[in-house]
Amino acid sequence: MKQTTQGKSGIKDVQNSCDERGIAIQKVGVSDVHLPFLIKTKSGSFQSVLAKIKLAVDLPQEFKGTHMSRFIEILSDWSQKPVSYREVEYMLTDTIDRLHAMRAHIDIHFKYFIEKAAPVSGLKSMLDYDCVFSAELVRGEQLDFMFGITVPFTSLCPCSKEISHYGAHNQRGTMRAKIKQLPGKFIWIEDLAAMMEEQGSCQVYALLKREDEKYVTEKAYENPKFVEDVLRDLVLTLRKIDGVEWFEVECENYESIHNHSAYAAHVECVEQ
Amino acid sequence: MKQTTQGKSGIKDVQNSCDERGIAIQKVGVSDVHLPFLIKTKSGSFQSVLAKIKLAVDLPQEFKGTHMSRFIEILSDWSQKPVSYREVEYMLTDTIDRLHAMRAHIDIHFKYFIEKAAPVSGLKSMLDYDCVFSAELVRGEQLDFMFGITVPFTSLCPCSKEISHYGAHNQRGTMRAKIKQLPGKFIWIEDLAAMMEEQGSCQVYALLKREDEKYVTEKAYENPKFVEDVLRDLVLTLRKIDGVEWFEVECENYESIHNHSAYAAHVECVEQ
Amino acid sequence: MKQTTQGKSGIKDVQNSCDERGIAIQKVGVSDVHLPFLIKTKSGSFQSVLAKIKLAVDLPQEFKGTHMSRFIEILSDWSQKPVSYREVEYMLTDTIDRLHAMRAHIDIHFKYFIEKAAPVSGLKSMLDYDCVFSAELVRGEQLDFMFGITVPFTSLCPCSKEISHYGAHNQRGTMRAKIKQLPGKFIWIEDLAAMMEEQGSCQVYALLKREDEKYVTEKAYENPKFVEDVLRDLVLTLRKIDGVEWFEVECENYESIHNHSAYAAHVECVEQ
Amino acid sequence: MKQTTQGKSGIKDVQNSCDERGIAIQKVGVSDVHLPFLIKTKSGSFQSVLAKIKLAVDLPQEFKGTHMSRFIEILSDWSQKPVSYREVEYMLTDTIDRLHAMRAHIDIHFKYFIEKAAPVSGLKSMLDYDCVFSAELVRGEQLDFMFGITVPFTSLCPCSKEISHYGAHNQRGTMRAKIKQLPGKFIWIEDLAAMMEEQGSCQVYALLKREDEKYVTEKAYENPKFVEDVLRDLVLTLRKIDGVEWFEVECENYESIHNHSAYAAHVECVEQ
Repeated sequence: MKQTTQGKSGIKDVQNSCDERGIAIQKVGVSDVHLPFLIKTKSGSFQSVLAKIKLAVDLPQEFKGTHMSRFIEILSDWSQKPVSYREVEYMLTDTIDRLHAMRAHIDIHFKYFIEKAAPVSGLKSMLDYDCVFSAELVRGEQLDFMFGITVPFTSLCPCSKEISHYGAHNQRGTMRAKIKQLPGKFIWIEDLAAMMEEQGSCQVYALLKREDEKYVTEKAYENPKFVEDVLRDLVLTLRKIDGVEWFEVECENYESIHNHSAYAAHVECVEQ
Repeated sequence: MKQTTQGKSGIKDVQNSCDERGIAIQKVGVSDVHLPFLIKTKSGSFQSVLAKIKLAVDLPQEFKGTHMSRFIEILSDWSQKPVSYREVEYMLTDTIDRLHAMRAHIDIHFKYFIEKAAPVSGLKSMLDYDCVFSAELVRGEQLDFMFGITVPFTSLCPCSKEISHYGAHNQRGTMRAKIKQLPGKFIWIEDLAAMMEEQGSCQVYALLKREDEKYVTEKAYENPKFVEDVLRDLVLTLRKIDGVEWFEVECENYESIHNHSAYAAHVECVEQ
Repeated sequence: MKQTTQGKSGIKDVQNSCDERGIAIQKVGVSDVHLPFLIKTKSGSFQSVLAKIKLAVDLPQEFKGTHMSRFIEILSDWSQKPVSYREVEYMLTDTIDRLHAMRAHIDIHFKYFIEKAAPVSGLKSMLDYDCVFSAELVRGEQLDFMFGITVPFTSLCPCSKEISHYGAHNQRGTMRAKIKQLPGKFIWIEDLAAMMEEQGSCQVYALLKREDEKYVTEKAYENPKFVEDVLRDLVLTLRKIDGVEWFEVECENYESIHNHSAYAAHVECVEQ
Repeated sequence: MKQTTQGKSGIKDVQNSCDERGIAIQKVGVSDVHLPFLIKTKSGSFQSVLAKIKLAVDLPQEFKGTHMSRFIEILSDWSQKPVSYREVEYMLTDTIDRLHAMRAHIDIHFKYFIEKAAPVSGLKSMLDYDCVFSAELVRGEQLDFMFGITVPFTSLCPCSKEISHYGAHNQRGTMRAKIKQLPGKFIWIEDLAAMMEEQGSCQVYALLKREDEKYVTEKAYENPKFVEDVLRDLVLTLRKIDGVEWFEVECENYESIHNHSAYAAHVECVEQ
């Protein structure tokens, strides 16, 4: 049996001692780490976001433990640099190297803001979108990168409109998409958000003046959609994104007439 | 200085040792305790609920600590008995006695279900309401009991209806009321919920068939209300409850056209 | 194109109208439904729990929408009957029939209580475990049933113990397991929980007197475990459950010396 | 009765129409608004944070509604400027003016990062603190400003240490303080956090190497504290802050031996 070794500090390195259960662990690391991160924007700049991160590596069966502090060192380093698809790859390569691992996995959840113009007044305001970069890298292979985004929207019920003399129940909904593209392909958060929010009965905005409120009210009424309609239109939209090989989509309508949600979900591998 | 005493088990009772900082603590106890509880219903039966509880007492300046396990013993005992206003008083009296305290405070949060009939089809279903019993008892004084409830409802925007050729944005909202009545007065959860849910543009239901959906759609359209309207009508409603001496109310509309909420709040001492 | 049909109520059935996008939806239904449910206990009785439910079916490409109210009718019916593995199958068969679907899927999340005796005093108290029944049924096939449970435990760090003159940092952790067994095999919540909570440094309890506190403190100190150790011992434990063909496990330690967690995860198909 | 007026856009201004219920609303506005905000740092710079905001004004009894879009305009403007005590006052003055109100209230919740050096290695890392600026301004009066912060820490149980042959249960806890200072007085987030985190058994850090882990383990063991001890030491600490006239403090220990928390709370008006 391998001895517990001394670390650089002259203190025993228990993690490096050997393990005899014969189980290689698929993922071990840190979760619920909060850090400011910099996300590259489509305009060529970057946005400072609050990131919630899980970072893990595999652990061969012969080692008792991983070195947890190194994950924090890696994340601290990378929290200083603007990040996008490419940098996530570097971050995972760095993680594999510093942890002597074969594979590394990261989830970075963050709220991202995009400026939108109100539909009539043109007034600008920021809307918030929950995003996630979810990636896995196996040493020597290509990066497996998934991008997820949650887009709020207005949905107006076709049934309610059809059967009622006036009005139609409508509500806020959220569409969640997670997509995987072929190596080298990439879509900006701004572009995916814009494509998605066209698929509800109407978009939502932070700032609407009265002329805008009239517009969004009438637009939603002219454009009734079940949660099923939104999902199907989303599927058609995601299939058209350049290089998409897989996607998962969920829609949830926070029904204004119930205390529960209407829900639809779909996963698809796209033929190239 | 008082010595650390031996407890019944022959193990030192550190909590009973003396403290010299001169600070009497207002509340010390347990929080985030989950237990099944039995809540008395208006119909004379009881409902088994999942309770999340905070229970605390004061601690005189001369003692180092309270006895945390006794709180769990008390809650375990009381989780077996149907509970309402009166039993909360017994529970706090019990707590004061067993902890040798001068005052005790409890918050019991739970989801409560009430059967509702759909407005046209009459079909029955259960709707869930977040409730809280919040009470304080000072030894020898009368119980200070507050009852809080969150009621979901549909709100339809008067401005959107007025300015649009057709339709009107509507959404789920929640009204939260917390009331305090004169000693001896009490209102059933069922009765307060029923009074409150009349104050939105329309009530919400778990189960609605098409004829019901037509009804709630049209009813909301005929009955547009700002968050301010709902709040004012709630204030008028709460003032009329027998023996109410204080209330606090909050309304929040999860706007279907925004990603944020419209909000209104009010606190009032009612003249008797 | 198929016409919008009239429903029983003489009101148009928009959901039944035809759709031409050519997309069969995998899952459509309701989510965030809260209902009281009855869960069968090992002792032959049942426990009333607060359930949070997602219920969905597939929707063929030719139909515009599903019938949302039927999901609530189904759940309302089943909320009255004690439920276990077998009843989930009946529930999904019922759903497939009433929705004219090919497949149905359900997730039932609930907090379940198990009575535990303190290790020395033997005093009884209830501990809460977050559980989920997650099942899918394809018409004419066997039920795909997964049971998930989250078990709280104490973990004590081997490295901290090894390198320190006295003490060792310890903390609450949670183990989450999700298992799938061969058709006809089933494990009681009580049994899985008991097997799992043996794998931490020590079990947790709601009620501990001083002699119990001494016991759990010393037991954890004698039994230091990294998050990796707990995960590996869990893997060994789950492999031994009768008929387990697949499992997924996650451990998270809410580190007492950090503001983030240590994390480990593993998925395995078990050879029979 | 006052007529519904035309707004600038030639569209009816329903909000401006008159109300006859005779109820002046204390708070009406927006909640759950997410925006990037800039918070002034002690070092003279600023930190970009993710803010969650509630902003409200009073509404006289004669008006039917407030103008919700103006709140978003105000927050959008202020989200561009580094903010501290003084700027919150300007923001509320601005709100009172633009809404023609008598009083305005704001809550700004945000996660703030402070760089800390590990106790032995000196390695730097960022720790996250949940903060809130909560302020009210009445036209013509002085600002009522409260600052709240949640500080994570390690607590080690004195009873467990005393009664056990070795070890002692310890866990992460949080201290929440909310303070109000005399007009013109102000304490930096960095300073309050530093004073508070001295009051646990030991501080927590994001990054600890082995020599640091040894230090924090031993330090906590040498410094056992009940939740009551932490609370009392916090009270002594807060009393000493320059110009503090009121404070509220809560401590919660996420017990490593239970699935619930130990809890203590205290409110105090400080004599000047």
